[in-house]
Amino acid sequence: MKTLYEGKTKDVLTDEATGAVYLLFKDSATGEDGVFDPGANTVGGSVEGKGKIGLKISSYFFELMEKNGIPTHYKGSDIEKGLMEVKKVTVPPLEFVLRYFTAGSMCRRFTLEEGIPFDPPYLEVTLKDDEQGDPLISERLCLMKNLLAPGQYEEALGVLEKVGALLRDEVAKMGYTLIDFKIELGYDEDGKVVVADEITPDIWRIKDENGNIPNQIDCAKMLLEKIG
Amino acid sequence: MKTLYEGKTKDVLTDEATGAVYLLFKDSATGEDGVFDPGANTVGGSVEGKGKIGLKISSYFFELMEKNGIPTHYKGSDIEKGLMEVKKVTVPPLEFVLRYFTAGSMCRRFTLEEGIPFDPPYLEVTLKDDEQGDPLISERLCLMKNLLAPGQYEEALGVLEKVGALLRDEVAKMGYTLIDFKIELGYDEDGKVVVADEITPDIWRIKDENGNIPNQIDCAKMLLEKIG
Repeated sequence: MKTLYEGKTKDVLTDEATGAVYLLFKDSATGEDGVFDPGANTVGGSVEGKGKIGLKISSYFFELMEKNGIPTHYKGSDIEKGLMEVKKVTVPPLEFVLRYFTAGSMCRRFTLEEGIPFDPPYLEVTLKDDEQGDPLISERLCLMKNLLAPGQYEEALGVLEKVGALLRDEVAKMGYTLIDFKIELGYDEDGKVVVADEITPDIWRIKDENGNIPNQIDCAKMLLEKIG
Repeated sequence: MKTLYEGKTKDVLTDEATGAVYLLFKDSATGEDGVFDPGANTVGGSVEGKGKIGLKISSYFFELMEKNGIPTHYKGSDIEKGLMEVKKVTVPPLEFVLRYFTAGSMCRRFTLEEGIPFDPPYLEVTLKDDEQGDPLISERLCLMKNLLAPGQYEEALGVLEKVGALLRDEVAKMGYTLIDFKIELGYDEDGKVVVADEITPDIWRIKDENGNIPNQIDCAKMLLEKIG
């Protein structure tokens, strides 16, 4: 196995013999100043078993999406090895963000209270760039930078809304309220869109019935009990 | 005269006897690390006479706008005193930005080359907030924060485009190319929109026929020669 890319919480590997592509889920977690935070751009520490738990949860949600007609990059997973086999797609450095409530950096940036509801949900597209703090990016700049082809921005927002509705309903069944989340999208050689990356508590904020927002480590443990 | 608000390059005053409102154009200029930069959020120094020159240029462009059917807050000016009398309007903390070419912070933020043309021009609305680096703000958040009323965002972009066309043509007549600029808008009691603040080299970047971009101090001197 050859490492193609080393990320903060995942590496991308390839089996040079077969050409198959895998994501290795690592035990590192994003956070800042010793506090775990799925919104942070730095690694805040390591939690034994986090990688496998994240892989298990991702597999659960990718399978759920496929069942519900949302195409993903998921091909299968080997939990023991921490590996998810994925389709070979190009993933532009964009994050597609959906918010059901104001939270986190958005509240700081625009001096808004936490927890103001958005109906319909609030959609944002950001450029993945730690140094620039992941700035919001428009359709026009995505085209100018050749990150997306014409039509793909609107299509992406449509996929984002579908994923949002599915995730919101699923975590609601588990007793939680989805606050916000971000996904990455991939494109195959024909330009067909798939949900890529991971679907774990690293990509969302949820709140319990008391309004408490667990960090991604606690959230993963809670979720694992639900999905078994 | 009572000072209502102290800004980086202008103060807002009122004559308590008459209720009239004035802008006092000061000699301070924005910049950073000793370099004058109209895009900077800090005062970089002071230039004797800058206030009066800015007032003269502003008066010229506001009068030009009024002649061309673009409503402004301008009522008249007393160059010697550095004072512009303005209509009493509410100015939301927004900047309306129009770009004919990529430049400055946009290039840094999105890793773009300088000087890529936009046709039609590229429009942005930012929240005036030095601490947050003037983040881009959407119509929906402007409504949520009660900065604008329904319809005013689109209306503002229309005013911005008209101002852009007029400024571009005017500086072209003087031998320069307009790169980008920002304006502020004010609203009277009936919600009628006017162009507010100032129209000086502090609000734009231009380039000469050799592609050189003068700082706002040099640009003001060049302009003053043209408008006499």
